[in-house]
Amino acid sequence: MFDLNIVLRSDISKCLYEQIYEYVRQEIREGKLLCEERLPSTRSLADFLQVSRSTVELAYEQLLSEGYIEARPYRGYFVCKLEELYQLPQATEEAVTLPHREEKKEYFVDFSPTAIDMSEFPFSVWKKINKNILSDSNSRLFSSGSAQGDYSLRETISRYLHSSRGVNCEPEQIVVGAGNDYLLMLLEKILGRHIPTAMENPTYKRAYQIFRSFAYPVKTVSMDENGMIVGQIEKDVKLVYVMPSRQYPTGTIMSVGRRSELLKWAGAEEDRYIIEDDYDSEFRYKGKPIPSLQAMDKHGKVIYMGTFSKAIAPAIRVSYMVLPKSLLRKYKEECAFYSTTVSRIDQKILEEFIKGGYFERYLNKMRKHYRGKHDLLLEELEPFRKNFEITGENAGLHILLTAKGSGMEKELIHSAENEGIKVYGLSESSIEGEADRKTIILGYGGLTEEEIIQGMERLKKAWLT
Amino acid sequence: MFDLNIVLRSDISKCLYEQIYEYVRQEIREGKLLCEERLPSTRSLADFLQVSRSTVELAYEQLLSEGYIEARPYRGYFVCKLEELYQLPQATEEAVTLPHREEKKEYFVDFSPTAIDMSEFPFSVWKKINKNILSDSNSRLFSSGSAQGDYSLRETISRYLHSSRGVNCEPEQIVVGAGNDYLLMLLEKILGRHIPTAMENPTYKRAYQIFRSFAYPVKTVSMDENGMIVGQIEKDVKLVYVMPSRQYPTGTIMSVGRRSELLKWAGAEEDRYIIEDDYDSEFRYKGKPIPSLQAMDKHGKVIYMGTFSKAIAPAIRVSYMVLPKSLLRKYKEECAFYSTTVSRIDQKILEEFIKGGYFERYLNKMRKHYRGKHDLLLEELEPFRKNFEITGENAGLHILLTAKGSGMEKELIHSAENEGIKVYGLSESSIEGEADRKTIILGYGGLTEEEIIQGMERLKKAWLT
Repeated sequence: MFDLNIVLRSDISKCLYEQIYEYVRQEIREGKLLCEERLPSTRSLADFLQVSRSTVELAYEQLLSEGYIEARPYRGYFVCKLEELYQLPQATEEAVTLPHREEKKEYFVDFSPTAIDMSEFPFSVWKKINKNILSDSNSRLFSSGSAQGDYSLRETISRYLHSSRGVNCEPEQIVVGAGNDYLLMLLEKILGRHIPTAMENPTYKRAYQIFRSFAYPVKTVSMDENGMIVGQIEKDVKLVYVMPSRQYPTGTIMSVGRRSELLKWAGAEEDRYIIEDDYDSEFRYKGKPIPSLQAMDKHGKVIYMGTFSKAIAPAIRVSYMVLPKSLLRKYKEECAFYSTTVSRIDQKILEEFIKGGYFERYLNKMRKHYRGKHDLLLEELEPFRKNFEITGENAGLHILLTAKGSGMEKELIHSAENEGIKVYGLSESSIEGEADRKTIILGYGGLTEEEIIQGMERLKKAWLT
Repeated sequence: MFDLNIVLRSDISKCLYEQIYEYVRQEIREGKLLCEERLPSTRSLADFLQVSRSTVELAYEQLLSEGYIEARPYRGYFVCKLEELYQLPQATEEAVTLPHREEKKEYFVDFSPTAIDMSEFPFSVWKKINKNILSDSNSRLFSSGSAQGDYSLRETISRYLHSSRGVNCEPEQIVVGAGNDYLLMLLEKILGRHIPTAMENPTYKRAYQIFRSFAYPVKTVSMDENGMIVGQIEKDVKLVYVMPSRQYPTGTIMSVGRRSELLKWAGAEEDRYIIEDDYDSEFRYKGKPIPSLQAMDKHGKVIYMGTFSKAIAPAIRVSYMVLPKSLLRKYKEECAFYSTTVSRIDQKILEEFIKGGYFERYLNKMRKHYRGKHDLLLEELEPFRKNFEITGENAGLHILLTAKGSGMEKELIHSAENEGIKVYGLSESSIEGEADRKTIILGYGGLTEEEIIQGMERLKKAWLT
């Protein structure tokens, strides 16, 4: 009646219907059961195989739902038209060699400007908050939350920003997201496409790469010791990206005059905006923190961005942006369907960490801690002053050395490398043109005092002898 | 010699230098100290105020760094040119009324198709894993991780996908991100701009909104009981978004014939790709899970996407996509600078949850649990069969009811509402044109059996009497 060479086995883990299903599927795939061919009825196959009819039915239903066979009323099951199924030519396995992980060279000391110090982080507090939150039977926290971030966290952030940075905002204006990169992506959706953007040069390279990947035309603007020379912003620019409190990498503080010029520039046209990236405003070792640009903004022109990745830990993927009300409306209307990228549990932990005063205490501790490293590094840099100009001190986590003489960045990096020391060139942050390439960035955030001393010892050998 | 009416107070918390700083800043702002005016020397002001010279120096340095004053060598400190500073017209407070939070109407029973059941979630296991991870002195976990997600988590996901969904991939091809919405944003950066995209109609509305916000031209393609009618994909389309295992919202399974047609379509041109959104493949109550489309893909045409938000909890913001190697290369070259959006701690917890076998056990439990609700709902639907066609059963977390007679979606929703029951219209998922609007979605994932019974009781009253 039919030719099914199927042998059911009881010694394997696959249940009977699966064995039938797989056998028939294989027969179809290999063309042994032909298109339009009628399958045995469930009853006759069940008899033949000595299994219950429902077992065969289950196998047929699976084949049916995957489209291998079709049911025709009063007639039975037929093999579907699948002629194209396995005639796809076998791909010659694409010879993509996956890019190798970059070989990490081992250095004796690495003056990385992005490394931070986690040795003082109050892990025990963090764990305790974590535990309390999870054990307070907060199964509610496992549900999906507001796209903008939980309201109570936004309230906490707005209070913190007001007291520490003078930022004026309501919790409604805050959007919480998993990192600045993500928030910039979201901002692209709010602002729109092809926005001509101005950045200082050198600048924070990742932001530059992100704007480039948006296909935003990026125009560079020169800067002097007062920050971006606002008068030189090109005519068609609609968006300016600045770090007024401490420009990365130069460490320049934008003067209050320039700030007001920049706000005036933005106020002149309705669709001009400023992104203020306040990435490490927390660490200033002399005087008070510089107030934010947003605090001076009376016209809703500043998009203020900040992150907890730097002040707490890189793994804490929580950043925030404060939208002016005109953009907030656009966000609500056009982008509010994008779900939040931060889990509610992580949001709650952070909220408690701030509300409990732990964040403030930690910041104060770290400021002192980093100041110690900063002062030590400056001391160690004394002998370098005859050959280098030293800038960018008194805040942040790095210092700049600019060769006074003929020393070139590349040679300086190379001779340091010969001593086992990794330093970074300013030109890595340049986004166009040939900079003078005489400046080295020395990051100290992630180093111990011991490492700073030993590192500088070797740099002396490399650069001063 | 100079006219500074400054009175220093010791009874307030502000330290002396701050009081001096604020006083001088105020004088400048109000125009009492004029542009180019010379400030008293630090020595004379210190004498005058009876404070130490370094206190005055600190105040001046703060003013200097904020750009209110400038230092001229051998001459002293001068007020900067700030004429534009406060001439900015005071903004008439923009009368933006912040959009109100949507009023949530209270329903007796809400047949939401997106709600899930967290009552069986092994909170205690989750907490224990969490605790172990934090206490294993894993301060390393607080550092920033790979942009793609930690390798060990990607290994775990690739093994899980292979065994459960037949997905063939190396961990190198997986990109982990905080939710599908984010991964789609990232994918836009990889694929490029203005990609003409085909979607079924009706479809998953959020994905549609996201493509629209990318300004991807979205073309709809008709579907029948075998899924998308591949032959009707418009000529210029480069990207097809499908949910082959169970289309949302119709519940249609794409037949193996159509799958192979679709793969053939993609194979015909180098820049054609398919997004397979395998959003709830875990819950199938009859037969085996339908294998993924990616499993059939021999030419690197399928971008496979999945999430743990549905199978574990919405708050778990972890999704993943599997990139074909050609796109992986593009990602590595052009987009790898985007930092990861998932904290390493969350990645580690998830990894242990899967590796420990808890995920599998939880899925099996939930499948059974949801199947119970599914079967109960089908039973309760029996009396509806004379007036409605019932589809989309045997998988997922919702069932569709299509009125056979004149009943219209809007009226059905309205009469249900009068009984305190919230149901959803299929047209909410329609992306263009007037659909027939006779179909209701009944989600049951988030309901108890009690609620299902009571809800159906009321729907009977609303629709059958």
